[in-house]
Amino acid sequence: VDEGDLDEVYRLVEPLHEADIADLLELTPSERRGLLAISLGDLMSAEVLAEVNDYVREDIIDALPASQVAGLAGQLDTDDAVAIIEDMEEEDQQAILAELDPEDRAVIEDALSYPDESAGRIMQRELVAVPEHMTVGQLIDYLRDHQELTTEFWEVFVVDPQHKPVGTCKLSWIMRSQRKVPVSEIMKHEQTLIPVDMDQEEVALRFQKYALISAAVVDGAGRLVGVITADDIVHIIQEEADEDILRLSGAGEGDINEPISDSYKARVRWLIANLGTAMVASFIIAQFGAAIETMVALAVLMPIVASIGGNAGTQTLAVTVRALATNQLTQSNTMRSIWREIRVALLIGATIAVIAGLGAGLIFENWRLASVIAVAILCNISLAGLSGVAIPVLLDRLDQDPAVSSSIFVTMITDSMGFLIFLGLAVFSGLAG
Amino acid sequence: VDEGDLDEVYRLVEPLHEADIADLLELTPSERRGLLAISLGDLMSAEVLAEVNDYVREDIIDALPASQVAGLAGQLDTDDAVAIIEDMEEEDQQAILAELDPEDRAVIEDALSYPDESAGRIMQRELVAVPEHMTVGQLIDYLRDHQELTTEFWEVFVVDPQHKPVGTCKLSWIMRSQRKVPVSEIMKHEQTLIPVDMDQEEVALRFQKYALISAAVVDGAGRLVGVITADDIVHIIQEEADEDILRLSGAGEGDINEPISDSYKARVRWLIANLGTAMVASFIIAQFGAAIETMVALAVLMPIVASIGGNAGTQTLAVTVRALATNQLTQSNTMRSIWREIRVALLIGATIAVIAGLGAGLIFENWRLASVIAVAILCNISLAGLSGVAIPVLLDRLDQDPAVSSSIFVTMITDSMGFLIFLGLAVFSGLAG
Repeated sequence: VDEGDLDEVYRLVEPLHEADIADLLELTPSERRGLLAISLGDLMSAEVLAEVNDYVREDIIDALPASQVAGLAGQLDTDDAVAIIEDMEEEDQQAILAELDPEDRAVIEDALSYPDESAGRIMQRELVAVPEHMTVGQLIDYLRDHQELTTEFWEVFVVDPQHKPVGTCKLSWIMRSQRKVPVSEIMKHEQTLIPVDMDQEEVALRFQKYALISAAVVDGAGRLVGVITADDIVHIIQEEADEDILRLSGAGEGDINEPISDSYKARVRWLIANLGTAMVASFIIAQFGAAIETMVALAVLMPIVASIGGNAGTQTLAVTVRALATNQLTQSNTMRSIWREIRVALLIGATIAVIAGLGAGLIFENWRLASVIAVAILCNISLAGLSGVAIPVLLDRLDQDPAVSSSIFVTMITDSMGFLIFLGLAVFSGLAG
Repeated sequence: VDEGDLDEVYRLVEPLHEADIADLLELTPSERRGLLAISLGDLMSAEVLAEVNDYVREDIIDALPASQVAGLAGQLDTDDAVAIIEDMEEEDQQAILAELDPEDRAVIEDALSYPDESAGRIMQRELVAVPEHMTVGQLIDYLRDHQELTTEFWEVFVVDPQHKPVGTCKLSWIMRSQRKVPVSEIMKHEQTLIPVDMDQEEVALRFQKYALISAAVVDGAGRLVGVITADDIVHIIQEEADEDILRLSGAGEGDINEPISDSYKARVRWLIANLGTAMVASFIIAQFGAAIETMVALAVLMPIVASIGGNAGTQTLAVTVRALATNQLTQSNTMRSIWREIRVALLIGATIAVIAGLGAGLIFENWRLASVIAVAILCNISLAGLSGVAIPVLLDRLDQDPAVSSSIFVTMITDSMGFLIFLGLAVFSGLAG
């Protein structure tokens, strides 16, 4: 690409799978992506566009004419086309929609009318639905005769005259049955129906729980409107888990292809909050200035108490946030989980307190100082365990995402209380100040 | 269950789906799980056993007789049966295997011979493979006539006489074709073959990348030996992402159903390592005892520098670990990513340095102190950005899991260097000591 030999680029890329071409585009530096996309010509297929990372896609769409993008979007299943168009800016969205043929446009506009990250956004409308009275033979003939139907599907949905799903048939069951058998006889009546406004995280949990390959999506009136397949769920689970890791550490979207200004904004906001909590901790230390002046060892040891507490809190927090996200921690076992974490924290606290106390005692040859640090560590780790489980649970009850702000609160508690307990005990025990 | 009315329990549980019964068992306190499992009788089906969390399953298996467990394992697909048996202790494993019928036993022993978390462990052996010359009509007749074949499959694999896969046919393609069409005409030649010893994380990435619903597993000689389906991959992706979150925070397995002693061991090990790094930081502070004695404000402010650096490092670390895990960060864009993180860190560092410097200057009315904290924060955040990307990349190159130990190293650097830079600058600038 650098040397401008675009024919050569085309020749080299031609044998690759779409997903590999997408990888190649992702690995290309941002400023050269547009040129590469143009030089790919017809290799720049709809599948490649669907496959690339959001930020990379923006670069490509900016480089290609709106008509070409619309052409590509028109070839995709509705779910993939929506995924591409929903991230665009309003103005670009309108340009693409205008270029689409009316039928595709109506479908995509309908999808965009559902909330972001809902089942309505991720479902595809292409599906096979048949009436109850059909036999296996009629179904096979129907599929053979109607070449305009979607080519990839894994289940056939059986619907009543109001188009409400009454059962589902895996293709393998149909293929193993004689032609004269009615589909209503081999279908499974119990099926997991996904309401069209369900959050995608909840949809993913259903797929996981019931080991689904595809599931019917129904509207408010219970009518079949779409289907979600496991290959989309695989992406969503990855996305949601990534979100939790990145939110817990305050890294925003955290994509390595994200523009620097976006990364800057997300992260600096978090660090400013962190600066605020650190200043609270500093304010507490400042109250003990006199004690530190008489005994510098306090300043030397105090970061240990805060740091150990912070880390113990993060451990409990990570466990709790994941248990909440995967629906393992619910109303009925909250008290048990809190009690469990307190017991773990007491055990850990006692162990670390003994090690740190012995170490401090031997180094400073001051056993009163050693006792103070041991007690402070035990208290702070216990507090870390309690807040590490209670804060995310509380945020979850208040319908806040526990991954977003828990760690700010937990760190504030373990830092401030760590300093307060340690320095307070030092003064109270007559050690200093 | 508490009141011992086991018939009533049975009646209440009867209408539930297997996955819901599994949830119920998970929510039941550990000591009552065995009793509940026994009281469920035939509702305690193979699917329920496959669905529950590993720790919960141990409680149940301990309560049920080996013959019943073996009976349940025998009903499952090989992948689910292996998942249950692989986690048992050697002795229990032998007891169950002895109760299985010889054919099931051979299959499971074969699966157990592959490494833990490899494709060989998660694949199922039940699949449909047909020769190239078959037509669609012959295939359908073959499926109808051989009722001993597996009932759930999504693709038919076409194999050559050596049983090597030559193509794959989605069932929907077969159902839409006329009886006389040979399967070799509608099959897709390019397919993603999974080597039997591939790590499950790599398998999951393939599924994600190529949006697969099922994929063929081949042995060293290229022969078809099994199939992996997307519903299993959904679990693996969740597992692997959870592992990264929990490892980054040093919380071990981090399952809320894990025995307390296991949680204790995993977490205390991490906190002892953390105690070591905190002591290194304390040792550095101790070298500046004289400076702190002359100016207590240093002790008040120094935790801010370390804390902000630690958090900035964690942000970069989270982004890098996820990019490595999802194969977005590879050899070819490493230098670009490091350079990107350094630029982000410089921008963030400058912002936080100005805010903290202004704050310190106004509160302490000492602008030399303000300059020292500003420069220290800028340096420490830059260092955090650099180490947050470089350390996990380095560990990855050395074939170590970057999620496991990166954060210990990064925190050590940001803590120790934070104190060293801040206190060192204070002395060097003639502010104190």
